[in-house]
Amino acid sequence: MNRITLTPDSRASFTNNAAFCVGTGRMGLALHKEYLDQLNMAQELAHFQHIRGHGLFCDDMAIYQPYTDENGVEHERYNFTYLDRVMDSYLAAGLRPFIELGFMPEKMASGTQTIFYWKGNTTPPADHEKWAAMVKATLRHLAERYGESEVSQWPCEVWNEPNLRGFWENADKEKYLQLYATSARAVKEALPRMRVGGPAICGGEGSQQWVRDFLTFCRDEKLPVDFVTRHAYMGNTPERKGRYLYHDMRTVESLLEEMQETRRIIDSFPEYRGMEMHITEFNTSYNPFCPIHDTNQNAAFIAGLLACLGDVAASYSYWTFGDVFEEQGVPLRPFHGGFGMIANGMIAKPTMWTFAFFNNLKGECVYRDEHAVILRRADGSLEGVLWNLCRVERAKLDLTIDLPGMGECSLITRTVDEDVCNPLKVWHEMGQPESLSRDQLAVLRQAGQPLAQSRIVNGSFDVTLGENAVVHFTAAPRRCQPDYGYDYHWYVK
Amino acid sequence: MNRITLTPDSRASFTNNAAFCVGTGRMGLALHKEYLDQLNMAQELAHFQHIRGHGLFCDDMAIYQPYTDENGVEHERYNFTYLDRVMDSYLAAGLRPFIELGFMPEKMASGTQTIFYWKGNTTPPADHEKWAAMVKATLRHLAERYGESEVSQWPCEVWNEPNLRGFWENADKEKYLQLYATSARAVKEALPRMRVGGPAICGGEGSQQWVRDFLTFCRDEKLPVDFVTRHAYMGNTPERKGRYLYHDMRTVESLLEEMQETRRIIDSFPEYRGMEMHITEFNTSYNPFCPIHDTNQNAAFIAGLLACLGDVAASYSYWTFGDVFEEQGVPLRPFHGGFGMIANGMIAKPTMWTFAFFNNLKGECVYRDEHAVILRRADGSLEGVLWNLCRVERAKLDLTIDLPGMGECSLITRTVDEDVCNPLKVWHEMGQPESLSRDQLAVLRQAGQPLAQSRIVNGSFDVTLGENAVVHFTAAPRRCQPDYGYDYHWYVK
Amino acid sequence: MNRITLTPDSRASFTNNAAFCVGTGRMGLALHKEYLDQLNMAQELAHFQHIRGHGLFCDDMAIYQPYTDENGVEHERYNFTYLDRVMDSYLAAGLRPFIELGFMPEKMASGTQTIFYWKGNTTPPADHEKWAAMVKATLRHLAERYGESEVSQWPCEVWNEPNLRGFWENADKEKYLQLYATSARAVKEALPRMRVGGPAICGGEGSQQWVRDFLTFCRDEKLPVDFVTRHAYMGNTPERKGRYLYHDMRTVESLLEEMQETRRIIDSFPEYRGMEMHITEFNTSYNPFCPIHDTNQNAAFIAGLLACLGDVAASYSYWTFGDVFEEQGVPLRPFHGGFGMIANGMIAKPTMWTFAFFNNLKGECVYRDEHAVILRRADGSLEGVLWNLCRVERAKLDLTIDLPGMGECSLITRTVDEDVCNPLKVWHEMGQPESLSRDQLAVLRQAGQPLAQSRIVNGSFDVTLGENAVVHFTAAPRRCQPDYGYDYHWYVK
Amino acid sequence: MNRITLTPDSRASFTNNAAFCVGTGRMGLALHKEYLDQLNMAQELAHFQHIRGHGLFCDDMAIYQPYTDENGVEHERYNFTYLDRVMDSYLAAGLRPFIELGFMPEKMASGTQTIFYWKGNTTPPADHEKWAAMVKATLRHLAERYGESEVSQWPCEVWNEPNLRGFWENADKEKYLQLYATSARAVKEALPRMRVGGPAICGGEGSQQWVRDFLTFCRDEKLPVDFVTRHAYMGNTPERKGRYLYHDMRTVESLLEEMQETRRIIDSFPEYRGMEMHITEFNTSYNPFCPIHDTNQNAAFIAGLLACLGDVAASYSYWTFGDVFEEQGVPLRPFHGGFGMIANGMIAKPTMWTFAFFNNLKGECVYRDEHAVILRRADGSLEGVLWNLCRVERAKLDLTIDLPGMGECSLITRTVDEDVCNPLKVWHEMGQPESLSRDQLAVLRQAGQPLAQSRIVNGSFDVTLGENAVVHFTAAPRRCQPDYGYDYHWYVK
Repeated sequence: MNRITLTPDSRASFTNNAAFCVGTGRMGLALHKEYLDQLNMAQELAHFQHIRGHGLFCDDMAIYQPYTDENGVEHERYNFTYLDRVMDSYLAAGLRPFIELGFMPEKMASGTQTIFYWKGNTTPPADHEKWAAMVKATLRHLAERYGESEVSQWPCEVWNEPNLRGFWENADKEKYLQLYATSARAVKEALPRMRVGGPAICGGEGSQQWVRDFLTFCRDEKLPVDFVTRHAYMGNTPERKGRYLYHDMRTVESLLEEMQETRRIIDSFPEYRGMEMHITEFNTSYNPFCPIHDTNQNAAFIAGLLACLGDVAASYSYWTFGDVFEEQGVPLRPFHGGFGMIANGMIAKPTMWTFAFFNNLKGECVYRDEHAVILRRADGSLEGVLWNLCRVERAKLDLTIDLPGMGECSLITRTVDEDVCNPLKVWHEMGQPESLSRDQLAVLRQAGQPLAQSRIVNGSFDVTLGENAVVHFTAAPRRCQPDYGYDYHWYVK
Repeated sequence: MNRITLTPDSRASFTNNAAFCVGTGRMGLALHKEYLDQLNMAQELAHFQHIRGHGLFCDDMAIYQPYTDENGVEHERYNFTYLDRVMDSYLAAGLRPFIELGFMPEKMASGTQTIFYWKGNTTPPADHEKWAAMVKATLRHLAERYGESEVSQWPCEVWNEPNLRGFWENADKEKYLQLYATSARAVKEALPRMRVGGPAICGGEGSQQWVRDFLTFCRDEKLPVDFVTRHAYMGNTPERKGRYLYHDMRTVESLLEEMQETRRIIDSFPEYRGMEMHITEFNTSYNPFCPIHDTNQNAAFIAGLLACLGDVAASYSYWTFGDVFEEQGVPLRPFHGGFGMIANGMIAKPTMWTFAFFNNLKGECVYRDEHAVILRRADGSLEGVLWNLCRVERAKLDLTIDLPGMGECSLITRTVDEDVCNPLKVWHEMGQPESLSRDQLAVLRQAGQPLAQSRIVNGSFDVTLGENAVVHFTAAPRRCQPDYGYDYHWYVK
Repeated sequence: MNRITLTPDSRASFTNNAAFCVGTGRMGLALHKEYLDQLNMAQELAHFQHIRGHGLFCDDMAIYQPYTDENGVEHERYNFTYLDRVMDSYLAAGLRPFIELGFMPEKMASGTQTIFYWKGNTTPPADHEKWAAMVKATLRHLAERYGESEVSQWPCEVWNEPNLRGFWENADKEKYLQLYATSARAVKEALPRMRVGGPAICGGEGSQQWVRDFLTFCRDEKLPVDFVTRHAYMGNTPERKGRYLYHDMRTVESLLEEMQETRRIIDSFPEYRGMEMHITEFNTSYNPFCPIHDTNQNAAFIAGLLACLGDVAASYSYWTFGDVFEEQGVPLRPFHGGFGMIANGMIAKPTMWTFAFFNNLKGECVYRDEHAVILRRADGSLEGVLWNLCRVERAKLDLTIDLPGMGECSLITRTVDEDVCNPLKVWHEMGQPESLSRDQLAVLRQAGQPLAQSRIVNGSFDVTLGENAVVHFTAAPRRCQPDYGYDYHWYVK
Repeated sequence: MNRITLTPDSRASFTNNAAFCVGTGRMGLALHKEYLDQLNMAQELAHFQHIRGHGLFCDDMAIYQPYTDENGVEHERYNFTYLDRVMDSYLAAGLRPFIELGFMPEKMASGTQTIFYWKGNTTPPADHEKWAAMVKATLRHLAERYGESEVSQWPCEVWNEPNLRGFWENADKEKYLQLYATSARAVKEALPRMRVGGPAICGGEGSQQWVRDFLTFCRDEKLPVDFVTRHAYMGNTPERKGRYLYHDMRTVESLLEEMQETRRIIDSFPEYRGMEMHITEFNTSYNPFCPIHDTNQNAAFIAGLLACLGDVAASYSYWTFGDVFEEQGVPLRPFHGGFGMIANGMIAKPTMWTFAFFNNLKGECVYRDEHAVILRRADGSLEGVLWNLCRVERAKLDLTIDLPGMGECSLITRTVDEDVCNPLKVWHEMGQPESLSRDQLAVLRQAGQPLAQSRIVNGSFDVTLGENAVVHFTAAPRRCQPDYGYDYHWYVK
């Protein structure tokens, strides 16, 4: 039995930036109804503030439309039909874009390399002036449509993971820095108050050096830079089986240390000390066909990360909110290890609740460790998230939590664990149906709901966390509102 | 351990008329948005076919609008503004009315006696011709608006519980029979194919004699009569505390025997042998401030009734689907013992699930007892509802159910019991708040969801029913759809 | 031909308070779905900020629920179930209540006098302490639910038209002042920053003296008073025919003069000089069965009022937004002269557009007369409302409007007149059907839409206002966005 | 003045198949929210029964997913995730698919030729067995999901316009017939009662010979064939300007003659005499950037076609219902000459109303000519569509229409013409904005509504059709419902 000892004066540090941003599949998918339904569900539960994904300039968004007229004169031309539609939807969902500039329109590209099923071109622009012109035209258009003061609040990141060959031809650092220079200047010309950053790297060998080189370059070239961005995935070297990928995960500590190293690099530049770092992607596995994403273990992993990433980063954007996603092709089945917090068919996965629990936390932190974050709200009640990540050995975790000086309390728990909120298991045991009937869908949606229960407690309470459980609780002094003649216990013995 | 022994040839009798009709508070409340939201929720879950309630001719529906013109001439005049609005809503929700003719418009009444907070006048018409004219005008209007063939399918009942003094002045049987004669003839004049019936009695002393007298009268007077209606409540003599009523409940057997007695009376008339009997109201308590309605015990009671009422009746209409209801005044609190399957604020009560489980049953019955109804579907799978009513002694119930010759099966259970689906308990332990915050509402709605789980079983399965549990299960031979490389067990040990 | 001469420097005075508040039938009707549908339509088109109506404390809202317990002790008790539901709906529609304290719960009343079909009790409280307690409890409850800072922004008016015998027993001024004193003090005790006012009088003989006496009383008794309220109707002595009322209307000038007189009375008190005056009800006729409300003439009348009422009043609340209204009984037919801007069945009446046009005006006024209000927006374009009230003689009105220095302009007009946007006429010529078929409803909804047209104009434009027309226009310098090869005129000669 | 003389006995022939089917952009776009919003609007107004478009087997639908496993074994594999989603949406909108088998998945293709911006592969299958297997698997999947009896009612067409080189490599007739043979047999193997047909040709030189050869082949090879399909466009040789195409249109008569020729060919085969012909695409221009589609002229053209195409064809499917369409790229502007009846932004174009008017016609035809179709409904009222196509000379058209023996009638007209329902003109005169503000959108939506008006007429009525007008009228004997005291004319002189 582990005891969480609290006093009325307990204080602990905890910075909660979980709601700042969430990830999304490529922008063109935001035209889909199922995508928007999932997005609205995520927003109703977890109230994210920004959304970031790839594909703003990919050809399915159809923005870049140059043409040569009958006199042979070339014209730049932009098409904002789909961009407007997507941005209208985001704003209606209460979200601001965290803009990512990329990838390359085919007609502007210097090469033919593409990435993903949906063939995003990942080569530098053939003409930097045209790139700058497109960036500026796009931002000015948005400012005209939504107001300059609104759009200036949208952060802007240059490209995605240029330190990977797939995402940036040859992972050519010089060319990325050149792209950054062009882009950052274009952003500030278009919207002087818009904040811009990079280098949007993923981790791995040499990645920290990228940050160092990026900042050195910005400093030396006197380039605008308002924040540093990078990614954080927990997956170790994977094993592939068929269309799926499997790997073990790093520890939370190891990931945090990698992030702190980036933090230290930033702070080592006098000019940039204290500058914001945004983790513009994070998750357990970096693969959209890795079955861990659908599990309760994933929910528990993410709880551990949300408890500590605010120590180093101004945001950390879960990749991704939903399973309308096509990087490795169109999902064949409702559960396939997609990144999303929500499976196709509007089925909440366990990880959805990790965010629902963290993003709505209010108050001052009184306790934090590797299993718990507990806050005291303004009204004196306690609220917290508890979790029990079982990586190798699988065991329940018994906790006792003090309720110092609070008297009789209403304890409300919402439990997500392998037994009570595990739609993946239900789907598996159903026989892994690819095409869900109405009845199956109804059962799976229910199976994706937390178990909401209550108890009356006094002084402290015990809770047993099941394997890979994530539990939200509130404990508030109970003031019962009676009614004339109402006797709850007449029928409830 | 109780074993339910099944073979591939098992057969049992079970007539499931649970979905035929559901009850509702007075018709004027059907103008309310919250009422319609609750109704649509009930329909999504339980797909009722008809709806019956009081108040068609009450003054808040404003149908009867006679006036005297400037020459002193009297005119009958009807206002169908609200009637159209309500009927449009019912049909849009997939429901047909089970019409109840009543109560008396104040301006047509012979007396001043009223019933309920909303003051329905319960005296005979001052002029039977005017009553007949109003009935015919109303039915003809409906036939013009919705089509005669449609409206002719709506059953029509004359008045409500005339054997109670509150509902019919002096419980005057002669006057009721006179009203029936007038009404039944008016119905057939307006719509010859519409089916009409009575006497809509509640149980108690002398009630069976009402049925006998009603049918004798119909026979002797050669009146149209297509079905007999009566009510069925389980509450014994109550104790009142403040605004609430508490009582013990009869047994299912005793209630069933009372219904069978009515059945025998009908069949004793050669002319009426086999004529349909509709139980146009039933519930545990007959009081809308009796806390049992919000409990899991209520859900288990109703399961027991739904398992056997089809033996005697063509329908049994639960009184009522929702808690937008005003007979004893406007509910002060979300949980107050209202009749509804859904509490105000769109919180499903346990009884909602009893109906969701029964109304969607398909297939042929293979087993029925006082804890279980089990059917075999066309595809060979089994489906059933299990329940464990705990009236006095509280104990779990262990069952073992055979899956004869079915091999490995997917077992899906949805559990409603005092521990996992008990919004009343959560509300009570919250402190019985009268005015729910958004967060409280969200928790209570989740607390009103069944626990959906699955197992893989073979040959038979065990299930432990918690106290007052109602459990739905499906067991289907499991044919697993694999996918290339998909390994569920990689992350799920 | 009338010419409206404008120069680039034109300025005119115009205070547009049309959107501040709108009227509504009694609060209990706000539970109805049709009411909310109409309200949301009005909000989408005209974006009102507050809503005011009767019936907060009427028995159908069920707030006052005193009881005597089994020991004979009396308890005050309040039921906020319906109040919460209504307030949730108002806030969701973007509206704040303009609270009216009234009428009297039957159990608190000193007498039995009631008003309206729905029987609002209009007698003083039997016990002023109980009244004060109820007011305070209600306001505190709202502050707990919606936040004190939010609720403190809701204006609060004491009672309605106490200078009429029907609305206040004997129109007893002394008793009203006593009620005001009790109420105003209760409001400030509950919410010190809530603004309170009265005396909510209607016009007519002696009404100005009520204002004088009210303010004298407040001053002498040092009572809180933040604003003065009164009503403004245009109907002269009516003629009754059957259930309908017909009367001629006063002139806009005469009404305005009456309002200015009240303004002068307020300003004659040194303590209250410049204090806000709110016209908490206005319309043409004061009767809900006066056919003028459905006409285009009504729309033109209201345009004339909206053009000038801001000169004297901080708000003027059109009585009422919709036709879900029951003061003289439930409407029998879609068009019956109800107050609403929207007829039952979601049919916009002409007056709806008067508000849609005025409430969305932006910019600085450059011209105002008895036919026109014209503004210049920040981007240099002009926008205006034009109208042609035909009281006795019926004639079109030709206007020429300058577009000074604006070059080629896009002129967009939306026209509401007897010919092109007149659902009442269509309904009449249909045969005045009481119960609308789906097809009839679709036609009537379309008949309630303005005619939207455009022209390209230069220097000035002509417009002919049909009889009782209300026309909205925008004129903006035209900057055409071409597209490569697009030739509008190829097919449009 | 033209007079349409009618008697009580008038009869005319008219077969109205306008509602049977409507066209759509490629199936993958049916995942878009804007697409579904437009579809639901079209359905609310025009109630189509089937929907047909390209792209079922295109790669964005992702159905064909073969793979080679780690042992080098090849597997056919299908992904129905998106197909289910689209079919669910269609059925929810009240539509059944008119299936078109095509185009070729890249991995099954024998060549690399593609068509359109979205690159549909238009080469024969490399392996006919794999094609047949895919067809059968897809149909069986649909039958399992939606029921065999349901899916068997969906007509099935093989490929699209194989007589064009762009749509079918080399327009190779032999290869098409081979594809038809494979496909038709596969369809019947999967679903014996599903109806199958071809050859889905467009018009032009040699097209009639295709029909002859197709039927000869079917007959000789004893292939299943249930109907013949072809297309019908009115555009003559076009002129291209930039991204737009302009051409004159053929006459209705010329198009009709071409269709009748096909009809005669079918009937010349004894085996196929009287077999259904479906025009699975028709429109004025065959280009999605031809500005005629947005005009009132287009609406009038289509009216002329709908009046006579039922003489020859069992259906004629307008290409297309909406402007979410990408064949020549993503539309840059709300009006760009797209095929749709609805412009992006939910703006009804004039042609939308042509279908709304025709598809809801009920009754027996009493008159038909090149300007009018008039029917008598069961209740004796008349209903009709009138139009005034102005190709070269532009003139209004005056008509007088008899109302034989009908007495005083309510005449309701809904008018669509260049003056009153012309959103294209308003958009043009606005300055052709590419990105619409909320206010602009509201105006354009209103500008896309017909003008609904009424008159009381007796014996006959006159109507002046504006240029390119399409007018719907109903004339019904007027039976006025009076109300006690209601005087419409008090305020309406």
